[in-house]
Amino acid sequence: MRRNQYEEIRDRVLAYFTQAHIIITEVEKAAVEVADFGLEDFEQVGLSLITYVNTERCCAKELVLFPGQTCPEHLHPSIGGYPGKEETFRVRYGKVYLYVDGEPTEEIRGHVPENGSQYYTAGKEIILYPGQQFTLTPNTRHWFQAGEEGAVVSEFSTTSYDEADIFTDVRIKRIPSIEG
Amino acid sequence: MRRNQYEEIRDRVLAYFTQAHIIITEVEKAAVEVADFGLEDFEQVGLSLITYVNTERCCAKELVLFPGQTCPEHLHPSIGGYPGKEETFRVRYGKVYLYVDGEPTEEIRGHVPENGSQYYTAGKEIILYPGQQFTLTPNTRHWFQAGEEGAVVSEFSTTSYDEADIFTDVRIKRIPSIEG
Repeated sequence: MRRNQYEEIRDRVLAYFTQAHIIITEVEKAAVEVADFGLEDFEQVGLSLITYVNTERCCAKELVLFPGQTCPEHLHPSIGGYPGKEETFRVRYGKVYLYVDGEPTEEIRGHVPENGSQYYTAGKEIILYPGQQFTLTPNTRHWFQAGEEGAVVSEFSTTSYDEADIFTDVRIKRIPSIEG
Repeated sequence: MRRNQYEEIRDRVLAYFTQAHIIITEVEKAAVEVADFGLEDFEQVGLSLITYVNTERCCAKELVLFPGQTCPEHLHPSIGGYPGKEETFRVRYGKVYLYVDGEPTEEIRGHVPENGSQYYTAGKEIILYPGQQFTLTPNTRHWFQAGEEGAVVSEFSTTSYDEADIFTDVRIKRIPSIEG
């Protein structure tokens, strides 16, 4: 991702935090993470976030999804003695369609992204509105998508090792790079 | 604490969440925890909270302090193989005076509560405004107090075992009981 593209996205992310009445510091504003997962199709498949804290024991983040944007399917594996990341998503603004391993929902309300559609396998739908939350155990495949207003989601979890996440889409690179 | 007192306090707590633009469910509203620590002096020493999630690995809560109210000094001990609770306080609304073990601040901006004043020993002051946060390691004595507008504070932590907390004030009972 080029720097000017990053900065344009970051400004839109900050507007979501304002709309959700979430106050963040100037240091955090400068450190907004914008992940296009290497697919270069950010409006469709992407995720923006701030990490409040990520110690050797626990982690908290604030996630932003643009309207209809999807965080692609992945799971958090066990690593050595670490049993894998457990995470709770709590919606603060907007609506989230969450899909997890399990009995597939017959007619889902979200939509599978065209880009990499064959890599979406988890089909049990959970719809979350502001104030609602869902806890995911490790090693559970999941993906999620914002409704038409976008979404802001708090994540409470054990330690994040984002670089260890396993994405169903083999093309994906989790850790973003900014050029220029 | 009597039920009618609890309900009056809970309504005030819910107004703080509204003011801080924090959306909670009806189930959570009914489960607001109000702790007077057995001191029956809630306006001075007390804490109200909602627990979003508390699994065997991590925990998230939303705390409310009324104006000038103090959460009394305590620490989170190791328990068997559990190294003790690590917690991050992130202020969402208002101002918080946090006091932790360490080099005492010469002139503190908060005030030691009259009720049990001899039980406040941690004197290193950290002042937190909205968007600011502080991470406490286990076994660190700490207490905190809201400024004149009260405060709403997100807590991100490892598992909470509130009943194991060690309070400096030997009179304190952490787990509240509601009568009548």
